[in-house]
Amino acid sequence: MNYKSRFLMLLTVLILVPAIGAFADELTNEQIQGAFDAIWLVLCATLVFFMQAGFAMVETGLTRAKNAGNIIMKNLMDFSVGAIMYWAIGWALMYGTSVGTFIGGDSFFVSGDPGLMRDWFFQVVFAATAATIVSGAMAERTRFTSYLIYSIFISGIIYPISGHWIWQGDGWLTVLGFHDFAGSTVVHSVGGWAALAGAVVLGPRIGKYININGKVTTKAIMGHNLPLAALGVFILWFGWYGFNTGSTLSGTDISMAHVAVTTTLAASTSGILAMLTVWIFSGKPDVSMSLNGALAGLVGITAPCAVVSPGAAIIIGAVAGILVVLSVEFIDKVLHIDDPVGAVSVHGVCGIWGTLAVGIFGNLDAIGSGLTRGGQIGVQALGAAAVFVWAFGLALILFLIVKKTVGLRVTEKEELAGLDIDEHGTEAYAGFQIFQNM
Amino acid sequence: MNYKSRFLMLLTVLILVPAIGAFADELTNEQIQGAFDAIWLVLCATLVFFMQAGFAMVETGLTRAKNAGNIIMKNLMDFSVGAIMYWAIGWALMYGTSVGTFIGGDSFFVSGDPGLMRDWFFQVVFAATAATIVSGAMAERTRFTSYLIYSIFISGIIYPISGHWIWQGDGWLTVLGFHDFAGSTVVHSVGGWAALAGAVVLGPRIGKYININGKVTTKAIMGHNLPLAALGVFILWFGWYGFNTGSTLSGTDISMAHVAVTTTLAASTSGILAMLTVWIFSGKPDVSMSLNGALAGLVGITAPCAVVSPGAAIIIGAVAGILVVLSVEFIDKVLHIDDPVGAVSVHGVCGIWGTLAVGIFGNLDAIGSGLTRGGQIGVQALGAAAVFVWAFGLALILFLIVKKTVGLRVTEKEELAGLDIDEHGTEAYAGFQIFQNM
Amino acid sequence: MNYKSRFLMLLTVLILVPAIGAFADELTNEQIQGAFDAIWLVLCATLVFFMQAGFAMVETGLTRAKNAGNIIMKNLMDFSVGAIMYWAIGWALMYGTSVGTFIGGDSFFVSGDPGLMRDWFFQVVFAATAATIVSGAMAERTRFTSYLIYSIFISGIIYPISGHWIWQGDGWLTVLGFHDFAGSTVVHSVGGWAALAGAVVLGPRIGKYININGKVTTKAIMGHNLPLAALGVFILWFGWYGFNTGSTLSGTDISMAHVAVTTTLAASTSGILAMLTVWIFSGKPDVSMSLNGALAGLVGITAPCAVVSPGAAIIIGAVAGILVVLSVEFIDKVLHIDDPVGAVSVHGVCGIWGTLAVGIFGNLDAIGSGLTRGGQIGVQALGAAAVFVWAFGLALILFLIVKKTVGLRVTEKEELAGLDIDEHGTEAYAGFQIFQNM
Repeated sequence: MNYKSRFLMLLTVLILVPAIGAFADELTNEQIQGAFDAIWLVLCATLVFFMQAGFAMVETGLTRAKNAGNIIMKNLMDFSVGAIMYWAIGWALMYGTSVGTFIGGDSFFVSGDPGLMRDWFFQVVFAATAATIVSGAMAERTRFTSYLIYSIFISGIIYPISGHWIWQGDGWLTVLGFHDFAGSTVVHSVGGWAALAGAVVLGPRIGKYININGKVTTKAIMGHNLPLAALGVFILWFGWYGFNTGSTLSGTDISMAHVAVTTTLAASTSGILAMLTVWIFSGKPDVSMSLNGALAGLVGITAPCAVVSPGAAIIIGAVAGILVVLSVEFIDKVLHIDDPVGAVSVHGVCGIWGTLAVGIFGNLDAIGSGLTRGGQIGVQALGAAAVFVWAFGLALILFLIVKKTVGLRVTEKEELAGLDIDEHGTEAYAGFQIFQNM
Repeated sequence: MNYKSRFLMLLTVLILVPAIGAFADELTNEQIQGAFDAIWLVLCATLVFFMQAGFAMVETGLTRAKNAGNIIMKNLMDFSVGAIMYWAIGWALMYGTSVGTFIGGDSFFVSGDPGLMRDWFFQVVFAATAATIVSGAMAERTRFTSYLIYSIFISGIIYPISGHWIWQGDGWLTVLGFHDFAGSTVVHSVGGWAALAGAVVLGPRIGKYININGKVTTKAIMGHNLPLAALGVFILWFGWYGFNTGSTLSGTDISMAHVAVTTTLAASTSGILAMLTVWIFSGKPDVSMSLNGALAGLVGITAPCAVVSPGAAIIIGAVAGILVVLSVEFIDKVLHIDDPVGAVSVHGVCGIWGTLAVGIFGNLDAIGSGLTRGGQIGVQALGAAAVFVWAFGLALILFLIVKKTVGLRVTEKEELAGLDIDEHGTEAYAGFQIFQNM
Repeated sequence: MNYKSRFLMLLTVLILVPAIGAFADELTNEQIQGAFDAIWLVLCATLVFFMQAGFAMVETGLTRAKNAGNIIMKNLMDFSVGAIMYWAIGWALMYGTSVGTFIGGDSFFVSGDPGLMRDWFFQVVFAATAATIVSGAMAERTRFTSYLIYSIFISGIIYPISGHWIWQGDGWLTVLGFHDFAGSTVVHSVGGWAALAGAVVLGPRIGKYININGKVTTKAIMGHNLPLAALGVFILWFGWYGFNTGSTLSGTDISMAHVAVTTTLAASTSGILAMLTVWIFSGKPDVSMSLNGALAGLVGITAPCAVVSPGAAIIIGAVAGILVVLSVEFIDKVLHIDDPVGAVSVHGVCGIWGTLAVGIFGNLDAIGSGLTRGGQIGVQALGAAAVFVWAFGLALILFLIVKKTVGLRVTEKEELAGLDIDEHGTEAYAGFQIFQNM
């Protein structure tokens, strides 16, 4: 062997040794990618889980003390029942192999490798969010048992099927080019329209609308704990960073930072604009409307957060902030539908706005559907409409069946006394003196 | 040099240049692994820290308004005193070089490289959890000074030593094959049994048990703020994801996602089952029992979360949910031990259940102890029993000494007036009208 | 080609194939570093965002029920207005290209690549923290509109400019060797001194100081919800882990773990020492002072957290705990400046202490300024003084202008009735019976 060959062999050995080391001891590229994705999605899902506390505090704070225990129970059970249903059925209908682009058909009773576990965990907290939105609109008058029945259906059936259309690669809306990055439609509108159905079927709380000679007067029923409601909004905003940035679905997609920025700007602008709008209309910067304003901006930016600029995020937030005030007033004062926390306006109406905003402001290359701007707007409108028909329609049927069978609403006596006493045998604030007529 | 050799030299240079680059500028495998571990454990420990807020809110909410300030102080000091003790002594006794498999013997006053700092930070939040569990069982009647003395001992002595047996590689229970992934026994049972000792030595709150002609009647003393208690449960559940998933101890062990799923399913099932159990027994879906149900499932899944399937997690949660209700009733109505928040049942009893569940449902290969199923169950039972004897016994001695020396309980006058006034010179809810007899 | 050459060619091919694969499919070093940094900073910023909830709860809890709605609104708008201002102007003044080491001059209306988005998101939550500190000192008597004006200026002008001096590499204090790792001066002192200016210009709340024949008696005005205040402190502590550990600014700098440890130990010690100090002086372990003690330690360790040992962190915390109690008493009882939540003492005074502690206890090699210990202490003192002059001076001018123009304070009637009613047309606790004179 000549010196050149010896030299070359030495070189190859020098290279091979670390290369072999890499394949033996070192993290492979797949392991690195896997670790990024697992850490990112587990932590983001954990943040989204915490939104349950936010919903519970917002709804509790914006309603009356006598129903606070019932509201807590609904929120706790929304998640608990929802998680079991989404494990048994929901995941399969949403992410199972598509049957005709409409519904998933396998993977019931989810079990499998860490990648599947990671994806299920990230998705279950979204399903629970949709479920819990409805609670607020049905607060202070719904039978607890009947609420549990509804909760089973939204997490197990209603939410997963429309979710399949949009977030499963073979779903019919996906195929058309519909874009909903983190769920303005998939999660929030579904919750908002089911909430609308619930509020309509239930009817208003006693004393909410007073009909004197055909003229209906609307009475404001004030929430009993604004600091808790504010805490709830901060918790929701906090968790929303997990909701939106986690929807990159990849720990190495650094556009998560862009999403955090658009989310921040839209929520901030929306809170400010809701405050200014209500200030102009009513003369005062109302607290609960401003809080709802921040949530409206968060819902609005949820679909477009990854494909719009910071400047567009501010416009989206501004419109959401104005829209939520007008919508709350319209639903309450004109339609006379009693939605105690404004869930329909925040999640339903601003969910549609966010969905359309994808088409109006979105970077078409980033969306990647190949549609023109007009085409994209059209598909976004079609998707929003289809989900309205699906979620509102199915929830309406469900609530009507429940109403006719087990009954949807507590008795007048129970409602006046508060649901805590009759439904749960408790008081939320034992020891505090609370006005009897509240 | 012929063309072949030239070609080969060129090739080796082409390969060597990036290879040298890798060793100069790029992140080494060790740096990548280190960053994953640091990010993962620091963030998970931060989540576990937040559980302190959860414990504080649960305990405050489930007791009376007149003691709320005292409860906050106990929780704040549990962590603060606990952190200093675990820094000075606790870590050394738990993770120092083993002396006879029973106790650690070096590394007092922890200081060192980032790896040690990371591990200490992750462990100190667990130690503080064990300490704070006890507070609930001793609520509304314990002298603040005496509580501080106890707090020093549990974080500095009691918790670290039994922790050494199980989580230090040379501890005697580790050697036998005992498996407790995230601390059903190490953390929760230790806290639960110390809580039991405290409740026994203290005796019940005034008015809790009324003895008329030898027949004891149990009075329910209602908590003053269920929304805060519910918030506390959501915070605990949220932090528990850090507690259980972080116990992989490695940021590249993607089984963290599996742990998140089993944790979710067990807590959900347990909340539902506790609600159903109390509903069947008392006729109403009780709020505080359902909240405790969710916690019971979390405690139960803490030991087995990494080695059981989703289906087994549901069974473990279901049993925990039923068990916690029966245990609370038994301890209250039969044993007449006054545990205001149910800490003994949630953390002690369900801690044992979770420990046994490792043996019953755990994948033996994943546990890796080499034991048969019967053997594993036996070792799990042995460990749970040993920790009961240790934690209950030592805490009992400690509380009896405190009782005989500085005194463990406030005067009857102070207890009736509330601990906030005499112990801390404050009121928790200044301005609110609160019924005097509460 | 002889067998040796064939063998060598085979070897090179075997090496080249995976190497080419690495350059085609695998994550590059830059991608890995980018993912670590994005995940780390987005999650830490999210934690820091949540501190807004903490500030809101602390301020609400430590003041009276009749102003709770107003306090929430101030906190919500601090963040919302602050985010928009910091996007439009603040970031440019702070991190734009330096004009004479004093102020940044480009990058208005922030938009750009994910790296810029990440950095802006991490910085905006710090800006909002500085803004919200002021709210507490001005609580219960400030006109809402006037507060909004102030909020615009601190996030847009005051905070970014002094921030530029210290955190932009070309700022004059950076050049001198000033070290403030996570913002004892940059964030907390700026907020504290603006708070002082606000409290001075506003004057005390009605009934706070009673002047009888030249002798001023100080009245304690108790907070209405200590559990909420405690929750706020736990949330702040939780978020502070993002604040301090995130200030590594790099996801691969594992000294984040060291920062977590010094942060934990300082906060714990400070809470204990504040409790002991107030216990010695007043005879009782006061709740709100102990809570403020924990915050004082967090502020104190914020500047030096990365360059001091665990033992030094304990000393820094101990001094902060004693200092905050003395400062609160001095400002209240001697200076008769009414700071309802102790914001000036916690953030201003302990901010200076933390800044000086860098010079006193810091590892000079880790600081890396090349100064002697005496020189470092001198530069730290100079920076603290310069920021005092800047923030206090500018805020004083601003508040005086507002006072002379739109007016800074509500009317006596509004103040007595509570700001919620006149400013916002609401009550925070509808239905609860609250004593009229509170």
